[in-house]
Amino acid sequence: MPYVNIKLTREAQPITAEQKAAIIKGVTDLLVDVIDRGPATTVVVIDEIDTDNYGVGGETITVRRSQNK
Amino acid sequence: MPYVNIKLTREAQPITAEQKAAIIKGVTDLLVDVIDRGPATTVVVIDEIDTDNYGVGGETITVRRSQNK
Amino acid sequence: MPYVNIKLTREAQPITAEQKAAIIKGVTDLLVDVIDRGPATTVVVIDEIDTDNYGVGGETITVRRSQNK
Amino acid sequence: MPYVNIKLTREAQPITAEQKAAIIKGVTDLLVDVIDRGPATTVVVIDEIDTDNYGVGGETITVRRSQNK
Amino acid sequence: MPYVNIKLTREAQPITAEQKAAIIKGVTDLLVDVIDRGPATTVVVIDEIDTDNYGVGGETITVRRSQNK
Amino acid sequence: MPYVNIKLTREAQPITAEQKAAIIKGVTDLLVDVIDRGPATTVVVIDEIDTDNYGVGGETITVRRSQNK
Repeated sequence: MPYVNIKLTREAQPITAEQKAAIIKGVTDLLVDVIDRGPATTVVVIDEIDTDNYGVGGETITVRRSQNK
Repeated sequence: MPYVNIKLTREAQPITAEQKAAIIKGVTDLLVDVIDRGPATTVVVIDEIDTDNYGVGGETITVRRSQNK
Repeated sequence: MPYVNIKLTREAQPITAEQKAAIIKGVTDLLVDVIDRGPATTVVVIDEIDTDNYGVGGETITVRRSQNK
Repeated sequence: MPYVNIKLTREAQPITAEQKAAIIKGVTDLLVDVIDRGPATTVVVIDEIDTDNYGVGGETITVRRSQNK
Repeated sequence: MPYVNIKLTREAQPITAEQKAAIIKGVTDLLVDVIDRGPATTVVVIDEIDTDNYGVGGETITVRRSQNK
Repeated sequence: MPYVNIKLTREAQPITAEQKAAIIKGVTDLLVDVIDRGPATTVVVIDEIDTDNYGVGGETITVRRSQNK
């Protein structure tokens, strides 16, 4: 039954459908392993966010990438 | 005053503006009917998610659609 | 398959288990009626928020209640 | 350490990268000023929502804009 | 940099601090393994939800538990 | 019209009602200043999270506090 939302930036090298499937499978399995919840109704939603729209430490990821942070 | 967020997959048959308006009206009315909250400042946000980015039971909706789940 | 999150304030008159069940049933049915999605894996999560922690128009609900807004 | 999510409509006049950076900087600074939390790991995510997908008072922003609300 | 939110029900057998730490470590590692993102600024937030406030298939988890679903 | 959700840890020194009001006012004003949106229907929700339930860098805030991170 758990619900999981993952927010990631959309980068020059996009996340592939295979990687998304691996994340969804991996987090669903993790919740079964650690707390024995799910998996039939475990829901995972991945949001891909533009680097202008995601900030860490008061700066956008666009700026941080340009500074190699 | 309630806030509602609805996450749905973006499918081959897109959800129309009329359907979105009906969902927004319907959930706003529901909260007035059941708990008498709102409606003036009730906020509803609909997020449309790619089928590769939405997982149920450890599989993406893309895979589940291909298996008629 | 849709996922719905509803945020409501926790007021002096609490929302009952029956009202919560009616909201969960109502929004699940609404999504079946309008877009024929779900209902087996439709997930609805209700968050109850202290009135000090919910703001509208720049003021907390605590303040707005004291002003009969 | 705080996490902040901001949902805004995507309008005819788009929000610029500079405005997004100012929002991210502003809210990060606000949390340092008011509660002295962060800023190194403060995360801010801005979601831009179509006006058909954002409702207030039971109506979409598309409809409200057409009525000058 | 990713942000992860996990919503779980608060059950009779509570999730321990050790289990929460294992979930946070596990999902952070998963994102490094699959997409090489993070881990220094990866944020994970776990929300524990009353079983009256979490619905699947139009029913609360409270009701589903009483029916051994 | 914007919607803002802020997640903060619940610490030994709790965030006061005055600080919450200042955050709600501050972020509402920020969005008016930067993008001229709102403020009448701007909604801000503050979630306070246990330090066991909030992770950064693969560790809970409980652990990080004990290490003075």
